[in-house]
Amino acid sequence: MDSNEIWKSVCAVRESAPLIHSITNYVVMNSTANALLAIGASPIMAHAPEEMQEIVSIAGGLVLNIGTLSAPWIESMVCAGKYAHKRAIPIMLDPVGAGASRLRTETAMRLINTALPSVIRGNGSEIMALNGAGGMTKGVDSMLSSSDAFDSAVNLAQACGCCVAVTGATDFVTDGQHAVQILGGNAMMSSVTGMGCTATVVVGAHVVACASNRMLTLQDAFNGTICGLAVMATAGGMAAERAAGPGSFQMHFLDALYSMTLQDIETQVEVRLQ
Amino acid sequence: MDSNEIWKSVCAVRESAPLIHSITNYVVMNSTANALLAIGASPIMAHAPEEMQEIVSIAGGLVLNIGTLSAPWIESMVCAGKYAHKRAIPIMLDPVGAGASRLRTETAMRLINTALPSVIRGNGSEIMALNGAGGMTKGVDSMLSSSDAFDSAVNLAQACGCCVAVTGATDFVTDGQHAVQILGGNAMMSSVTGMGCTATVVVGAHVVACASNRMLTLQDAFNGTICGLAVMATAGGMAAERAAGPGSFQMHFLDALYSMTLQDIETQVEVRLQ
Amino acid sequence: MDSNEIWKSVCAVRESAPLIHSITNYVVMNSTANALLAIGASPIMAHAPEEMQEIVSIAGGLVLNIGTLSAPWIESMVCAGKYAHKRAIPIMLDPVGAGASRLRTETAMRLINTALPSVIRGNGSEIMALNGAGGMTKGVDSMLSSSDAFDSAVNLAQACGCCVAVTGATDFVTDGQHAVQILGGNAMMSSVTGMGCTATVVVGAHVVACASNRMLTLQDAFNGTICGLAVMATAGGMAAERAAGPGSFQMHFLDALYSMTLQDIETQVEVRLQ
Repeated sequence: MDSNEIWKSVCAVRESAPLIHSITNYVVMNSTANALLAIGASPIMAHAPEEMQEIVSIAGGLVLNIGTLSAPWIESMVCAGKYAHKRAIPIMLDPVGAGASRLRTETAMRLINTALPSVIRGNGSEIMALNGAGGMTKGVDSMLSSSDAFDSAVNLAQACGCCVAVTGATDFVTDGQHAVQILGGNAMMSSVTGMGCTATVVVGAHVVACASNRMLTLQDAFNGTICGLAVMATAGGMAAERAAGPGSFQMHFLDALYSMTLQDIETQVEVRLQ
Repeated sequence: MDSNEIWKSVCAVRESAPLIHSITNYVVMNSTANALLAIGASPIMAHAPEEMQEIVSIAGGLVLNIGTLSAPWIESMVCAGKYAHKRAIPIMLDPVGAGASRLRTETAMRLINTALPSVIRGNGSEIMALNGAGGMTKGVDSMLSSSDAFDSAVNLAQACGCCVAVTGATDFVTDGQHAVQILGGNAMMSSVTGMGCTATVVVGAHVVACASNRMLTLQDAFNGTICGLAVMATAGGMAAERAAGPGSFQMHFLDALYSMTLQDIETQVEVRLQ
Repeated sequence: MDSNEIWKSVCAVRESAPLIHSITNYVVMNSTANALLAIGASPIMAHAPEEMQEIVSIAGGLVLNIGTLSAPWIESMVCAGKYAHKRAIPIMLDPVGAGASRLRTETAMRLINTALPSVIRGNGSEIMALNGAGGMTKGVDSMLSSSDAFDSAVNLAQACGCCVAVTGATDFVTDGQHAVQILGGNAMMSSVTGMGCTATVVVGAHVVACASNRMLTLQDAFNGTICGLAVMATAGGMAAERAAGPGSFQMHFLDALYSMTLQDIETQVEVRLQ
């Protein structure tokens, strides 16, 4: 995928302003909402079962993130996943901390089996845990070498019939048949909380824009995921050039998402066949 | 209302440091608390029914925001609203997403009927939904032309005996008899999550300061709401002059709330009879 | 304690990257996670009883913060406290708003009695409330003169066999036998929400680093608390030199936590025997 295709997706998000419904963890609600607004998408957060059908019915896509689970929120996610699957809108799963507890691993598997997500995005240890590879998680912001998780990602993508993205020092994306690497970004991204969660919502907006009112194909999910992660890497590279630490990095990152041009993409990111 | 009156209210908030109790949505808890601190007010968040009477008893005002509802939080808001009404402290309602689901519309109406808020602040579609005008909501950050909602706001203010504010490209405020427009601010405010919610708490602090230990009148609520929205517009204009995107906008916005002078108000905002 | 000892602790946190499990209030989840990442520690948030034992088992320390209580979260904190006590990992208690409601005061006392925290950090009124001195709390960000609370802190430390820190214009720390003052920081810290909560997690990371896999002693808790508060004061002083208000202060504060050098500590903070 070249820079022009990524740029086309950036423009599609800005023009179509997809409404992304998130049921996500408390830590990142504010920062992921701001990231969606910065790329031109529109966020909505709602978790009450009583309003789930109505909220899902106006959303362009659904993000499920298990970062701060509890029993009622799990039921909300399952409920939203079923409605979103029935409407055939894109569903993105962020299995935060899978492998760190049975509750997280089992909840992620339950959401995979009931919502049939189009995209699963995690770090290496989370994807390995979901694949039953016994990955150990050291916290939710850990930086396991992402290449260790490549086989797990391909297996998981094939088993689930979806697209799997592993983010870390290098990101990669697979639909089970093809795989690409996304080179770019900056190590300071791991010093800001919720950058992985932010990647998942940005991917979600791009997947929705790629599908653009047609029935989503696996190819759309694959392309949208690559575009979303390329946008993250571009903004990360732009922000790192201006930041004096993770506080200013986060500010410049949002500004970069908002102001990103084709030239920034050309300069900051490379998508390469794995 | 001229700049000197707005400035007097800014100083009153800074000097009296009103304690604002919020039961609000998860997305904006941090950003609205920071906005209250930046204007010199003091935030407290508490939603447990067991402590509601005590917390309301030390608060100067109460903000109820329905952005991320669930059954237990609705009961907390109803409970807090009753105690606050009994104490006759100002109550501000932010009906986030009213119209997007029956749960939100009905909860907002229930809070209006049980807490009898002094101020309702929403975007155009939310106010139209509350007025039964059948407004459709596209997400919680949508920018419906606020003038479309003017009739709904006047009706709602008359029906509820309170002050209604509609924020958007242009803000307006009505007490059912009078109406003003507030001209200023910047379009980038719609690229930062929770700016509407922030407006509601800033309005709350100004309403409390306007009442200053007397029984609140509708005139106080009207004046306080105008001052609060004028402060938002002033800070929005100041921030836009310095921002490179929504990340730096948010930072400069808080700085502007904190450092705002009479001259900034004179430069950035105009309050005009509707 | 001199600057070299504080610097050694800063380096120990950066090198050992302790995993801090927080069960904390919604307002500060994002900002405290970012502060932990900025100092080189690793945050995890989890409150479901079903995963409590597993999450505590991988954590280096536990922070309990009662800022937005509700019945299920109290049970989660009690549960996590018991597991953490059984594992003998450091436990830090932040009694936000103790004194403002019976629920808060009683929950803090219940956590003290069941989890036996190594450190309690609060503002003056909170510590006085816990000591039964009848301190009145005006909101959670109030700036009571911290010296008023000194006797309460010493009593509480002796009664609980732990370290007690009172933060405010001047911070002090006591283990019941010794006491130090930490001079530094800046008044603007009280204009950013959650600075006290941030102090508690930063202290937590330093206490864990001070103990470094040995059984924690009261001396370790005392030293780690002093180092954590000295780091807060240093970053506060550094941020104040660059900030135009609380928005930019918060950004510079995170950058300062991340980039702090020995020279910054020497310039910005003084630890003095009380």
